[in-house]
Amino acid sequence: MDKISNGWFSEISEFWPGNSFSLQVEQVLHHEKSEYQDILVFKSKSFGNVLVLDGVIQATEKDEFAYQEMITHIPLFAHPNPKKVLVVGGGDGGVLREVVKHPQVESVTLCEIDKGVIEASRRFLPKMAAGFDHPKVTLFIGDGLEFMRSRKGEFDVIITDSSDPIGPAQGLFERSYYELLKSALTPGGIICSQAESMWLHLDTIKNLQKFCKELYPVVEYAYCSIPSYPGGSIGFLICSTSNQSCSKPIREITSDVQKQMQYYTEQVHSASFVLPNFAAKELNQ
Amino acid sequence: MDKISNGWFSEISEFWPGNSFSLQVEQVLHHEKSEYQDILVFKSKSFGNVLVLDGVIQATEKDEFAYQEMITHIPLFAHPNPKKVLVVGGGDGGVLREVVKHPQVESVTLCEIDKGVIEASRRFLPKMAAGFDHPKVTLFIGDGLEFMRSRKGEFDVIITDSSDPIGPAQGLFERSYYELLKSALTPGGIICSQAESMWLHLDTIKNLQKFCKELYPVVEYAYCSIPSYPGGSIGFLICSTSNQSCSKPIREITSDVQKQMQYYTEQVHSASFVLPNFAAKELNQ
Repeated sequence: MDKISNGWFSEISEFWPGNSFSLQVEQVLHHEKSEYQDILVFKSKSFGNVLVLDGVIQATEKDEFAYQEMITHIPLFAHPNPKKVLVVGGGDGGVLREVVKHPQVESVTLCEIDKGVIEASRRFLPKMAAGFDHPKVTLFIGDGLEFMRSRKGEFDVIITDSSDPIGPAQGLFERSYYELLKSALTPGGIICSQAESMWLHLDTIKNLQKFCKELYPVVEYAYCSIPSYPGGSIGFLICSTSNQSCSKPIREITSDVQKQMQYYTEQVHSASFVLPNFAAKELNQ
Repeated sequence: MDKISNGWFSEISEFWPGNSFSLQVEQVLHHEKSEYQDILVFKSKSFGNVLVLDGVIQATEKDEFAYQEMITHIPLFAHPNPKKVLVVGGGDGGVLREVVKHPQVESVTLCEIDKGVIEASRRFLPKMAAGFDHPKVTLFIGDGLEFMRSRKGEFDVIITDSSDPIGPAQGLFERSYYELLKSALTPGGIICSQAESMWLHLDTIKNLQKFCKELYPVVEYAYCSIPSYPGGSIGFLICSTSNQSCSKPIREITSDVQKQMQYYTEQVHSASFVLPNFAAKELNQ
């Protein structure tokens, strides 16, 4: 808890040296050392309740919808008929909440290594955890890599909602994981992964892209604006086993679904693939 | 200088309560109380040199290009033939540097209230201050509102590169200023103003839009990603006295000009007008 000082939580990490985002703390709601990581939940003055893992903000009630909607609806609306979906990580439940907005999804499995995250989210972040109780959802508590090894040709869309490549999520940024993802997809399957900030981690993203291009015919990068993540934005690596770009939705976004969205629209989907020139030159080659 | 503590500068303001961005300080390069405001320049560990006015980051060498390019090239590429340009504020020189990239611009006037900002930028932010020495540039040290009162039908594009509506820039967020801007424009003229963050100041933006819609036939909002501004993004209010939307460039961006850009492209111009649903619902009515 040493990152809370004078009533402010500060996110200081060697993964983004020299810059830091801080939130004023009204009340610490929960703090534990789980088997895998340090889990902290606090009530902030202006961003609602906040989930922190190993000192890094994972979600705040003010802006979590930006990330959860974009990492989910980009791959799901780029797929012609997503029936079976897998979420690796995402123990806060926010991605599940978004996946089940698609009526054609028949089942969604969540594979989270740390049940402490699920329990903390259920207690203190009920708007995100709402997805856990949906009848289409199956929970699997365990290692994502291990889980993937026994799955072949099973999922239409796989979303990797991981923390940064330091700590328990490190293996989810490696080539071997992306090989397992590929073999777990149905023909035409799509993956979408949390892929860091173009402002702070362009080299990490380029490295991911490099080996993904050897595995998938389509490898793309999109991003969204989100104040509580380092640099104020977060990117997504989207790969498809078909030859079709994922940069436009290919299914209708019904008004019933659209009105549940705070960030995603058809236009936002396409615009999120348009990168600033410095990033486009590196990533759109 | 009390906002530097334990080697970190923190941007704490009642204009964005409860959240704060911090940069690690390597060396304080300059600090003065000018007639108008507190001016601080420091060398940061990871964002280059940083200009701070009244405790608020105005520009960092790492990411200033995002703001300077977008506030300049959106209105200039939306105008068919911008010959005469006015910049109100912008004492760091970055907008001037961008304006003079347009060969058809014949003259650009900068009206900055605080010559201390210009001097600090010339000494410590030479990449931004480069614009001051261009032969098409005229400097006017004085109050923007006062300057505008005597100008009628003179400028094709007016860019208001101001700080926040607290302190010396307060008057630049009021209806009377936007009335003066309108009367200083040539027929078909376009204005573009710094217009805060959709995440943090939606009410401020809506208020600006409300009175602008009574003055201008076209009132639009665009934004860009920029890590060192509150919430990691900043918006622009773009108004035109013609009926033509400014959301697409209407002149060719030559390869000679494009290769000087780190953020702006034709596609980025259009994408920057596509707002997340929560903001679009409020601002695109």
